[in-house]
Amino acid sequence: MTDTNREWVLAERPTGEPDLDCFELRESAVPTPDPGELLVRTRFLSVDPYMRGRMRDAESYAEPWDVGDSLKGGIVGEVVESEHDAYAAGDLVTGEGAWADYATLAADAVAPVDPSVADPEAYLGALGMPGRTAYFGLLEVGEPKPGDTVVVSGAAGAVGSVVGQIAKRNGCRVVGFAGSDEKTAWLTDELGFDAAINYKATDDYHAALESAAPNGVDVYFDNVGGPITDAVFANLNLDARVAVCGQIAHYNDEEVPTGPRKLPQLIAVRARVQGLLVSDFASRFGEASERLGRWVASGELTHRETVVDGLENAPDAFLGLFEGDNIGKQVVRVSPETA
Amino acid sequence: MTDTNREWVLAERPTGEPDLDCFELRESAVPTPDPGELLVRTRFLSVDPYMRGRMRDAESYAEPWDVGDSLKGGIVGEVVESEHDAYAAGDLVTGEGAWADYATLAADAVAPVDPSVADPEAYLGALGMPGRTAYFGLLEVGEPKPGDTVVVSGAAGAVGSVVGQIAKRNGCRVVGFAGSDEKTAWLTDELGFDAAINYKATDDYHAALESAAPNGVDVYFDNVGGPITDAVFANLNLDARVAVCGQIAHYNDEEVPTGPRKLPQLIAVRARVQGLLVSDFASRFGEASERLGRWVASGELTHRETVVDGLENAPDAFLGLFEGDNIGKQVVRVSPETA
Repeated sequence: MTDTNREWVLAERPTGEPDLDCFELRESAVPTPDPGELLVRTRFLSVDPYMRGRMRDAESYAEPWDVGDSLKGGIVGEVVESEHDAYAAGDLVTGEGAWADYATLAADAVAPVDPSVADPEAYLGALGMPGRTAYFGLLEVGEPKPGDTVVVSGAAGAVGSVVGQIAKRNGCRVVGFAGSDEKTAWLTDELGFDAAINYKATDDYHAALESAAPNGVDVYFDNVGGPITDAVFANLNLDARVAVCGQIAHYNDEEVPTGPRKLPQLIAVRARVQGLLVSDFASRFGEASERLGRWVASGELTHRETVVDGLENAPDAFLGLFEGDNIGKQVVRVSPETA
Repeated sequence: MTDTNREWVLAERPTGEPDLDCFELRESAVPTPDPGELLVRTRFLSVDPYMRGRMRDAESYAEPWDVGDSLKGGIVGEVVESEHDAYAAGDLVTGEGAWADYATLAADAVAPVDPSVADPEAYLGALGMPGRTAYFGLLEVGEPKPGDTVVVSGAAGAVGSVVGQIAKRNGCRVVGFAGSDEKTAWLTDELGFDAAINYKATDDYHAALESAAPNGVDVYFDNVGGPITDAVFANLNLDARVAVCGQIAHYNDEEVPTGPRKLPQLIAVRARVQGLLVSDFASRFGEASERLGRWVASGELTHRETVVDGLENAPDAFLGLFEGDNIGKQVVRVSPETA
């Protein structure tokens, strides 16, 4: 163990698309855990689209970061020093921590990582916040019924890939939008999607959707927004449910974006459109973790992580989310497994 | 009773804003009721914004009218000839009938009109489809709770005026948007709205709304769409509910209208937006009619009808809806009370 720590701080707020100037890697001392805390050496950290919102100077569900603040998010790490009985040095845990080599975390705010269930990085994806978002968003907001057609945007991402697989378990026809042939092939060939549309290879989303979802759309799980969403809204069935989980197409907009109005379309089909935030389901996280863990351990739920190596590359990994660089969950490997 | 009947037919489909060329008054024979039917002399007929949708050549919840078809809607009439035991000549009934002097209606599809409860024309408004729409739309889709701020657009219309009054019964703060000082005065002085905004007298809906609803919006009952709705969406509270009942600002649009995208706003507040059609609540119409009737009879629920005289003026009354000519329910008086 070294004496020095590195951590990423917000150097400036982005205007429009963020770039590397927004981030600064600072050296600091390795923190000392207080009673009840753990000192953790970061193995993997998570970069997520929602973090773009925390870079704005505006109150939202996640507190905005101030310039100079440490960036934070999901991490998986190894306990180096424990000031809590429940954990010992060498344990793997996951929780919310700094983008840093080392971080202190409250022991009662972390969960154990079981490498016999899945590789530790999966605890930032299918077994972490994205998996729980998919689980509750699809089942509680989307309310899929057997025979429904479920459409997912950002389908090859950390959330979308789990949404589609749970929808298949529920007896639905599943159609995904994704941004490359490699992604769409993964969706149909490995995840069991019934159809997948490479939106970068067509300029007629309406036609592509009508072909892939000829019976219309009963559930739409939206991670993206923009023209894909416009096409899906034009094909909603009676009593359709729309879970608005993310709108990555708009996160870098500086002005309120405009597009086709959707409310007039909702009346005839009585569709329900609902914003989704996984923290609303916190009291049931145990249920989701237990089921997702079982499905992952048995191989019934496929997961995938795109790994960028090195803490120094965390901002690049974050920026790559907006380019669709990732398949499955984008993580950053901060330190190797100890031998 | 005369031998000739007059009825309005769709002469041509409107493009954009309808005009009088879309309507043709035809003479026809007074129809003869089949067994189980009633011949009814129309006293009042209802013109409603949703009828604009039936003039389009597009399937929707209400079957489109073909060119040459009789226009139909809610009517109140007096039974002239009955081929059903439940009704006798002289009875007042309400149901769906042609825009005509006389119409035949199936006896099992009409409801009795009780003039001791309210003037017969109220059965086309607060005691008819608009009242039931307000009742179920507010209570079942809007789900108001005491202390909520409820905002209604088209607040001085047939539906909106009832929505606001029911919301007041539920202990809510109620704010209405309407299009004249006469209307806003009616809302605040006679219906008990806490605040009303004359949207034609301001060009800053955001500021007006923030002043009238300083604690944000918990329930939005939307009859209108357009810029009013844009302003309300920017002020939705956590877990807000939006009932999309009508979008009269867009009914005459020939292209899909554009405007600020609303989905990105829904995530942080987890708002729920739902299209509303009163027919989905048909199994509970008895409940609504009983309560609305009781509130009207006791004077607890204020209702108002704007009456245009003469069947020949029905198209003008319909077109006036898009100009906001009506306060409360717009009806057409087709024949006077028999002495």
